[in-house]
Amino acid sequence: MTTQLIVLNGGSSSGKSGIARCLQAILPDPWLTLGVDTLVDALPVSMQSAEGGIEFAADGSVNVGAQFMALEAAWLAGVAAMARAGARIIHDDVFLGGAASQQRVKDALDGLDVLWVGVRCDAAVAAGRELARGDRVRGMAELQAEVVHDGVTYDLEVDTTNAESLACARTIAARIG
Amino acid sequence: MTTQLIVLNGGSSSGKSGIARCLQAILPDPWLTLGVDTLVDALPVSMQSAEGGIEFAADGSVNVGAQFMALEAAWLAGVAAMARAGARIIHDDVFLGGAASQQRVKDALDGLDVLWVGVRCDAAVAAGRELARGDRVRGMAELQAEVVHDGVTYDLEVDTTNAESLACARTIAARIG
Amino acid sequence: MTTQLIVLNGGSSSGKSGIARCLQAILPDPWLTLGVDTLVDALPVSMQSAEGGIEFAADGSVNVGAQFMALEAAWLAGVAAMARAGARIIHDDVFLGGAASQQRVKDALDGLDVLWVGVRCDAAVAAGRELARGDRVRGMAELQAEVVHDGVTYDLEVDTTNAESLACARTIAARIG
Amino acid sequence: MTTQLIVLNGGSSSGKSGIARCLQAILPDPWLTLGVDTLVDALPVSMQSAEGGIEFAADGSVNVGAQFMALEAAWLAGVAAMARAGARIIHDDVFLGGAASQQRVKDALDGLDVLWVGVRCDAAVAAGRELARGDRVRGMAELQAEVVHDGVTYDLEVDTTNAESLACARTIAARIG
Repeated sequence: MTTQLIVLNGGSSSGKSGIARCLQAILPDPWLTLGVDTLVDALPVSMQSAEGGIEFAADGSVNVGAQFMALEAAWLAGVAAMARAGARIIHDDVFLGGAASQQRVKDALDGLDVLWVGVRCDAAVAAGRELARGDRVRGMAELQAEVVHDGVTYDLEVDTTNAESLACARTIAARIG
Repeated sequence: MTTQLIVLNGGSSSGKSGIARCLQAILPDPWLTLGVDTLVDALPVSMQSAEGGIEFAADGSVNVGAQFMALEAAWLAGVAAMARAGARIIHDDVFLGGAASQQRVKDALDGLDVLWVGVRCDAAVAAGRELARGDRVRGMAELQAEVVHDGVTYDLEVDTTNAESLACARTIAARIG
Repeated sequence: MTTQLIVLNGGSSSGKSGIARCLQAILPDPWLTLGVDTLVDALPVSMQSAEGGIEFAADGSVNVGAQFMALEAAWLAGVAAMARAGARIIHDDVFLGGAASQQRVKDALDGLDVLWVGVRCDAAVAAGRELARGDRVRGMAELQAEVVHDGVTYDLEVDTTNAESLACARTIAARIG
Repeated sequence: MTTQLIVLNGGSSSGKSGIARCLQAILPDPWLTLGVDTLVDALPVSMQSAEGGIEFAADGSVNVGAQFMALEAAWLAGVAAMARAGARIIHDDVFLGGAASQQRVKDALDGLDVLWVGVRCDAAVAAGRELARGDRVRGMAELQAEVVHDGVTYDLEVDTTNAESLACARTIAARIG
């Protein structure tokens, strides 16, 4: 069986993007990396900080509104269609709603062969990396570190607290069909 | 009838992205902007400058290989599915193959209500804007200015040579159903 | 006499950066482009949105505090020293305080051969370009368009309302000693 | 005695920028971060890949020409002047010439109170991080990992192979006068 999608779920600054780029570098086939950041970048600028859209509050909390949810559902339908049309996709996500978020993604990807990967990172370490990046609202990493895994089930989990992105990618790559 | 997709086709530095952002700002509904740049960013880094992938040569020419074409086809299938699922999408593209490129996009978007927009810009002016941006390979603007419109048919055309992005966006918005 | 510095002063989205890149491309010697954006990027992230530092308010106004002013004075002393050491420099600035801002820069650059250039752009056009860029707080362009030129004296002025960056750069380049 | 400059020297992808941002976040005074990347961004685009300027070759090697060296000397004179004028500065550098590079910087910063910090990272680990970043030419990290420290003397050294940026920053901060 052939893995069609890799879903990486983890909090902000847990290291998902780095793992995705390493996966793209070491996997023999070309994989596309898409994720919630791609969707946010595609939104009207006004929706990137608004009621109804997605709001990154000063305390690090993220609030999503009804319009964002509707667009995200359409987006996921599109990602599923890309995979059905033969593209292999790394989907980089932040399950702010834990199990409920996973269920929505699961429904959208129904019938596809998905590898579900949890990307964990100790909250304090992720907060330090958020500081080192300097391009994210402070507080997101800590607020999201645990909650995004709440009730979520995985095929495998990696932890970037003490492991490099490349090592995590190799662990994941070994599970790709 | 409701416009589901706006396809903006034009050469590099013709002003498509600026028009897309203005459209997002002035249209009452939220529209997603996706385009060939989004796809290129989603590729493995190695495919962004490689045989098989997409290669931006030093003289400004762009060469796309078989793997890129296959991924682009899957990508377009996904964009179509997003639109069918209710997202309104601005698709920002560069028809390097002119009419043949348009046919591929047309096939992918079959059954959807699409507004086809040509974004023209005088080659010398586009070359000057490429210089002013400083983030694109020099020569692309001039090489692409005419060829991307070769045999392509539009619902309307705008020309950024002497018109601001916002004015072009208003012209397009007036045609949205 | 040899021009050692070109100071470009204009409001946000008036086109200074594009002109600077065109100048760098057409002038025979290598010129460095530095400006207030370089300084802001060099600040601690916390000072980029804080009392004491520089604050970009939601309405487009920009407030600078005492710590920012002190660092800016040191920064300008450094830019002057670079020019005295032989680097040719394009200094891209926004004189929020009009004539008083120019005086501070003038004092810092004392003894150097400076070409003072005003970069004008109609406020409504600049506001449209701000929308098209999508990466600046809305409102800055309009608020700054006139006030930054208040009482400021120039060697020459260019107006990007109806002229391309490259054409403006050529006008400026013709005045470089 | 008051530390006026912190010089961070290390190879590409060794973690200098992350440490610099953490230092800016934890130090009580505002510090500016400037470095060789700031200078490269200030260059004409044409010099960023050219003979005479600075060339990032496909194999990861970096070649600097006479024009770059002259501009770098003027740049360093400016950084020294900023520090003398009261700005506290983190200078982030890559001593491609080892001890000879350090001597040039030392001469430029003569009379200032400088804390010299070596930022080490195991070559293989740095190469993995380069892959995870995806925005640097592959090979730079490995080629630079050792050579930039050749004959260089430090006040202290940190090693990011097994330590987070924030922990390294705390070690450095403890030495700031």
